[in-house]
Amino acid sequence: MIGIGVIGYGYWGPNIARCVAEAAGCTLKAIADPSGAAQARAALRHPGVAIDDGWQRMLTDPSIDAVAIATPTRLHYEIALAALMAGKHVLVEKPLAPTSREAARLVAEAAKRNLVLMVDHTFVYTGAVQKIRDLIDSGVTGDLFYYDSTRINFGLFQDDVNVVWDLAVHDLAILDFLLGAEPLAISANGAGHIKGSPENLAHITLYLEGGVTAHLNVNWLAPVKIRRTLIGGSRRMIVYDDMEPSEKVKVYDRGVEFHERPSQEEIRRILPAYRMGDVWTPHIPVKEALITEIEHFGHCVANNQVPLTSGESGLRVVRLLEAASQSLAQRGHPIDLVPLKAAS
Amino acid sequence: MIGIGVIGYGYWGPNIARCVAEAAGCTLKAIADPSGAAQARAALRHPGVAIDDGWQRMLTDPSIDAVAIATPTRLHYEIALAALMAGKHVLVEKPLAPTSREAARLVAEAAKRNLVLMVDHTFVYTGAVQKIRDLIDSGVTGDLFYYDSTRINFGLFQDDVNVVWDLAVHDLAILDFLLGAEPLAISANGAGHIKGSPENLAHITLYLEGGVTAHLNVNWLAPVKIRRTLIGGSRRMIVYDDMEPSEKVKVYDRGVEFHERPSQEEIRRILPAYRMGDVWTPHIPVKEALITEIEHFGHCVANNQVPLTSGESGLRVVRLLEAASQSLAQRGHPIDLVPLKAAS
Amino acid sequence: MIGIGVIGYGYWGPNIARCVAEAAGCTLKAIADPSGAAQARAALRHPGVAIDDGWQRMLTDPSIDAVAIATPTRLHYEIALAALMAGKHVLVEKPLAPTSREAARLVAEAAKRNLVLMVDHTFVYTGAVQKIRDLIDSGVTGDLFYYDSTRINFGLFQDDVNVVWDLAVHDLAILDFLLGAEPLAISANGAGHIKGSPENLAHITLYLEGGVTAHLNVNWLAPVKIRRTLIGGSRRMIVYDDMEPSEKVKVYDRGVEFHERPSQEEIRRILPAYRMGDVWTPHIPVKEALITEIEHFGHCVANNQVPLTSGESGLRVVRLLEAASQSLAQRGHPIDLVPLKAAS
Amino acid sequence: MIGIGVIGYGYWGPNIARCVAEAAGCTLKAIADPSGAAQARAALRHPGVAIDDGWQRMLTDPSIDAVAIATPTRLHYEIALAALMAGKHVLVEKPLAPTSREAARLVAEAAKRNLVLMVDHTFVYTGAVQKIRDLIDSGVTGDLFYYDSTRINFGLFQDDVNVVWDLAVHDLAILDFLLGAEPLAISANGAGHIKGSPENLAHITLYLEGGVTAHLNVNWLAPVKIRRTLIGGSRRMIVYDDMEPSEKVKVYDRGVEFHERPSQEEIRRILPAYRMGDVWTPHIPVKEALITEIEHFGHCVANNQVPLTSGESGLRVVRLLEAASQSLAQRGHPIDLVPLKAAS
Repeated sequence: MIGIGVIGYGYWGPNIARCVAEAAGCTLKAIADPSGAAQARAALRHPGVAIDDGWQRMLTDPSIDAVAIATPTRLHYEIALAALMAGKHVLVEKPLAPTSREAARLVAEAAKRNLVLMVDHTFVYTGAVQKIRDLIDSGVTGDLFYYDSTRINFGLFQDDVNVVWDLAVHDLAILDFLLGAEPLAISANGAGHIKGSPENLAHITLYLEGGVTAHLNVNWLAPVKIRRTLIGGSRRMIVYDDMEPSEKVKVYDRGVEFHERPSQEEIRRILPAYRMGDVWTPHIPVKEALITEIEHFGHCVANNQVPLTSGESGLRVVRLLEAASQSLAQRGHPIDLVPLKAAS
Repeated sequence: MIGIGVIGYGYWGPNIARCVAEAAGCTLKAIADPSGAAQARAALRHPGVAIDDGWQRMLTDPSIDAVAIATPTRLHYEIALAALMAGKHVLVEKPLAPTSREAARLVAEAAKRNLVLMVDHTFVYTGAVQKIRDLIDSGVTGDLFYYDSTRINFGLFQDDVNVVWDLAVHDLAILDFLLGAEPLAISANGAGHIKGSPENLAHITLYLEGGVTAHLNVNWLAPVKIRRTLIGGSRRMIVYDDMEPSEKVKVYDRGVEFHERPSQEEIRRILPAYRMGDVWTPHIPVKEALITEIEHFGHCVANNQVPLTSGESGLRVVRLLEAASQSLAQRGHPIDLVPLKAAS
Repeated sequence: MIGIGVIGYGYWGPNIARCVAEAAGCTLKAIADPSGAAQARAALRHPGVAIDDGWQRMLTDPSIDAVAIATPTRLHYEIALAALMAGKHVLVEKPLAPTSREAARLVAEAAKRNLVLMVDHTFVYTGAVQKIRDLIDSGVTGDLFYYDSTRINFGLFQDDVNVVWDLAVHDLAILDFLLGAEPLAISANGAGHIKGSPENLAHITLYLEGGVTAHLNVNWLAPVKIRRTLIGGSRRMIVYDDMEPSEKVKVYDRGVEFHERPSQEEIRRILPAYRMGDVWTPHIPVKEALITEIEHFGHCVANNQVPLTSGESGLRVVRLLEAASQSLAQRGHPIDLVPLKAAS
Repeated sequence: MIGIGVIGYGYWGPNIARCVAEAAGCTLKAIADPSGAAQARAALRHPGVAIDDGWQRMLTDPSIDAVAIATPTRLHYEIALAALMAGKHVLVEKPLAPTSREAARLVAEAAKRNLVLMVDHTFVYTGAVQKIRDLIDSGVTGDLFYYDSTRINFGLFQDDVNVVWDLAVHDLAILDFLLGAEPLAISANGAGHIKGSPENLAHITLYLEGGVTAHLNVNWLAPVKIRRTLIGGSRRMIVYDDMEPSEKVKVYDRGVEFHERPSQEEIRRILPAYRMGDVWTPHIPVKEALITEIEHFGHCVANNQVPLTSGESGLRVVRLLEAASQSLAQRGHPIDLVPLKAAS
């Protein structure tokens, strides 16, 4: 059993604590949060678990093998570094750190000490994203053309990050998991419409190896909640709608091929041959992604393995977030990316 | 009765011809198309109407007051100019011309001769877009924040224009009609995924006066058809879903305001006050937009009035299309726009 | 080429006339309607076709091989009988006749004279219903359990028939086509909520051979339009949603089997084994059903074949409508049905 | 604080226990279930609460003011009666009892002892149903015409009750709450398609005072989950879709009126005047219905008030369930109802 302490019990921390308590192979040992109200909520939900107002004592507790950090992003680096230096394995809520320099330092520290550093890219552990990766890897989609995601809703403004760091991070993490392709350049546009508040809306385009493009539409100020991603391939296309209660992933057997010579009659349009085949919705067993993720973390700690969402993937995502921010400040001016995989 | 000749009877021409025949105040006098098959289809549908393989004879026919041009875009300029010079009023399918220089020349020619020059920005004449303009003009939405449109489908690849000139033109026309705001800069990203074919996917951001942003997502290679626009305002937000059979426009009474001081306890998140009110779906009477448009054209010709979608609006839209193309070729590099309304 | 005259040019007649004009193998020869306005509309749409205020002259016109009758239901019998006696093949809008006695007389007359008598059960000719029959016949669904249809909308009140004769007739026709099973009994409930108007809402249950049940929910006074049918089978289930623009038929690989012995622990619930598999949406090519139907009628006339929706099927459906009406008048009292196939 | 013991910790009991623990004014004191596994789950979730394998000890525990019974239906009567006789207030999961005789006995016992007897008709406590009642009571809908509910899903077969007692009970409870109208007769059809299993599908029609009709479509073997109710009134109509995440209740300003004299031209159809107005979706604050309900129960116990879903309403619903079962066994034969409100 891996003993785990949870640091931060605000919005996301309670979910992590609950899943640690339920995950096979893991035990919830302690919860830390400076807020008295948060401590009281934690005590009510998890009687028998040590509740503390600081995280420092966890690092010297030998019953705690690992910590899960769910604090505001600006505290990720300090706490994760201290935990690694104290010999603890670390799971950090996304994004891994506020800067790539700090993220890289965490990755290096974990490598040096042979500790597991994992980032909480939750969507990677959903049945839907796992199924989509299977579809891509097994050739069902053919050559990938594009990834186009809309991730918008109403509310949940934050004050220490903008909508890119809050919402686009999910898609960048999914892309990092799904695609082997190296990103080459990024262009981002966006705006803050509420005075004194960070950007609440952004549109990001990634240019990847092999002509693949990815586009992310994120918005905190949309009247409706949409979580839909289209993935276009040469053989088939996928629609992933996370708001659907059960039919989340649909595979469309559609494609287009072009004849060399357009007909004489039709001067205007060439005559592409469209293939309109069946639609297929694979059954995806329901399991809470965060439980799957925590169990994977426990497994990696117990077996000294590299997690799917390793510190390196967290670093790659932070680099993309930085480049997106840079482009956003210049109204879409494209930012060429240093090869990320090489760099990491 | 305004006598009208239709030039071009390929994909869109038959719709124009049918609507001219049905529109009050207009008479369909002639149809021209170089294709024998097109001529045969026209003769079958419109017995009694003169069918020709060339458009030149229409220009000398005194029974023809106006022509409607539905040819490939590359022919718009030549034909429209000849028609204006022959004293005919002109309705041109969108986009008005392939270049802003040509579009400006058409506008000038029409002005000089005091003829009606109108561009077929069909969506402007839908009940839905008219209703949205009413909602904006009457203050229902408050200050505008953003316009975000997804206009994607499968098929209808074209060879003489890319997806921007084919699909984004609709949104640029709607924006030109809805918003008084001057566009300041444009950034466009996109790609062609089919070898030898023009860009099939693009994402365009417009920066407008007053901090308003507009974003257009257009795609010829999407597995599903989506026609949805979100319009965010300070008081209310609109969802316009053109695929809904009857409830196309929904008005959301939602908004956000921020407290000056966040609570002590919640370090991470400030506490914005979200307003979640009712949703209202105004009833919109059903009438085919193209009929409304043709009747408006006939009315402007008969009364020497400037149409809603004048040559000037066609020119403004072409200028935006050109700037988008320029940015697209540079991976989103922003293009500053010369004040368009001033220029025109 | 089969020469066809259309009798009745009110709501449905224009569709039939248009499809006769477009259908391969058929020619529209004449249209009859007592209304001057209807005649004018017919003349505008079909120049060159004989327009008449009475149908009698058609019966002596040797260029007319067949007539299509789209008058109010109460006139079906008189006109169809006269046409058959004049040696014309006959297509009759649904329902075939207002009473089964009259329907049986038409069937007998057509048989005696070796003429084609076909009823316009349009849905049978849709790609969706044809696909569903393929799925059933090829064993995809397994043993049929139930058919459950909701066919509701707002408007189109009629004065000479109630909602059962107007809307349920469609489902009874589809059932007659899809299922080999003999109906054994019928129970119908319903009500008229508008004073002086016929029943605007009804719920009909059919008990068929082999334990199959069918349920029809029809309503003229629903705020929304729904056209959805569920078909449950032992191996798979179908959802047929006619309002979906393209994904009309979905096949669910779902089912249930029961273990003999429930677990000790769970006293309350036995533990059925649910099978939750994939969903599959077969591609269905788009073709207007009425064109398919008219071409089938022409083919049957030309080749002296029995149509899919023969007079016999029209008679079977009228018998069910009569029994439903009888039950409806008695608040659901079940009506045992004389074996219909035997009887016909 | 009202001390509450929960009896039965299978499918629904854990929800009741959690809500008792969270509800203002209530304290969870004890949980009883004969299953060792259930006891273990209860102990894990509710440390500090007494866990027992029998319910008898609760009845003599002075710290327990009331019990909530969530056992299989067949045990409701015995336990509830014993609890009432021990002076405990009682909340019983729906249906109140397996027979109306037993339900009436419980009602009488509670009345005699001046104890609160409440039935867990959860939907009555949802924001949606409360809003609908407001709409009806304030005259928004006008005179009620019909209630038409579809409540179908896949799975959750039970062995001690059929689909009517499991699912239709929800709609009968909602109807009892929404409508003042007395039910006059009931007709029910249905079937069991799985050998050895109770009816899995049923269609029930209620005839109520004033010409109102209600129809319930319930099904355990549907491939999709639908929870939709249409309510038709003379002034407006409501669509209540419980599967919608946020826009559950829509109000349609639609109606029909009939002209006395149809037009001369249109022989077939009279010309009803349809009113097609706006659609309005009132905002409904989100609160878990079961919490609202438990707090209402605690409030009624503390203040000696009659709950919204009193024992009497539970009895009325059981009487309708019995009549529906009787009709179901006779293929829809209508059952006249003894005036229920009078009888109770």
